[in-house]
Amino acid sequence: MNKQNWPLEDVRHWLEPGPVVLISSRWQGKNNIMTLGWHTILEFSPSLVGLMISAGNVSYSLIRQSGECVINLPDASMADIVSGIGNCRGDSTDKFAHFDLTAEKSEQIAAPGIAECHASFECRLYDDALVERYNFFIFEVVAARVKPEPEWPQTLHYTGGGIFRGDGEVIDRHRLFTKVS
Amino acid sequence: MNKQNWPLEDVRHWLEPGPVVLISSRWQGKNNIMTLGWHTILEFSPSLVGLMISAGNVSYSLIRQSGECVINLPDASMADIVSGIGNCRGDSTDKFAHFDLTAEKSEQIAAPGIAECHASFECRLYDDALVERYNFFIFEVVAARVKPEPEWPQTLHYTGGGIFRGDGEVIDRHRLFTKVS
Repeated sequence: MNKQNWPLEDVRHWLEPGPVVLISSRWQGKNNIMTLGWHTILEFSPSLVGLMISAGNVSYSLIRQSGECVINLPDASMADIVSGIGNCRGDSTDKFAHFDLTAEKSEQIAAPGIAECHASFECRLYDDALVERYNFFIFEVVAARVKPEPEWPQTLHYTGGGIFRGDGEVIDRHRLFTKVS
Repeated sequence: MNKQNWPLEDVRHWLEPGPVVLISSRWQGKNNIMTLGWHTILEFSPSLVGLMISAGNVSYSLIRQSGECVINLPDASMADIVSGIGNCRGDSTDKFAHFDLTAEKSEQIAAPGIAECHASFECRLYDDALVERYNFFIFEVVAARVKPEPEWPQTLHYTGGGIFRGDGEVIDRHRLFTKVS
């Protein structure tokens, strides 16, 4: 099912619960994908996300050069792919081809998304003040696209040691929320 | 059950999956607690965590002045408390008293932890370079304490709009992990 536009100021709906994500990038004709669990929302509007991208990754170089990446949200059926991508190197493997993933054209940036993922958030570098010291990139989400179904896919949450937790039941406490968010 | 020491370099085990946390703080005899979902691990060793603490919170002031806080991990049975804490103000409410929570003495810092939470990570300010611009604090975890049981509590993951997701089944892919972490 094709993705549809999602409000930029509500990217938190998908990323604040803390799922592992796949980061796709492109520079000088080369695409790559990495698995990433160290991210946080930083602001609703502009829509800011912080990513810790270790300098040892091939993706680091592509993202540093291009100033772009796509944050893709895999569902639990992709656990093998997510693990595999995190355990091979982009300098010796074309990860789109090896894992049979489809590069999906982005709207606002050159880096492609991953068609098989539930959501794709196109990111442009916003602030690199902490890149040298911590490999911490602040990106602005400039386009957000999400599959309309299912309403919520099973997501993967990484605990280290090759073990993920899926997500579970809905726990609705909206009656206790008097503030906006 | 009393908490026991946990390896500082493995705080990610608890925080990387993205649970909502309760941040306790103390300054000049005043304690406070806030609910927070915008955090990320930044480094194994030193054990670094980034927290986005909105300047509108009373906790911001206590944490800015003291340079300390405790990241506490609530379980799903605390969903009402987590929601309530996120929807009242610390300048008019003593949150420990109001929510019947027990201030637990910390080992390394003055700010107390929350005894009822599954884990408490004592934090000292490490870098405030992005506090002015983004309210983004980088803390070093200087003590980590976790209840030995259960091995994994149900955690809460916030999606906005007063709706949390619990966490679900264990998805074990360690056979696919050839890298260390």
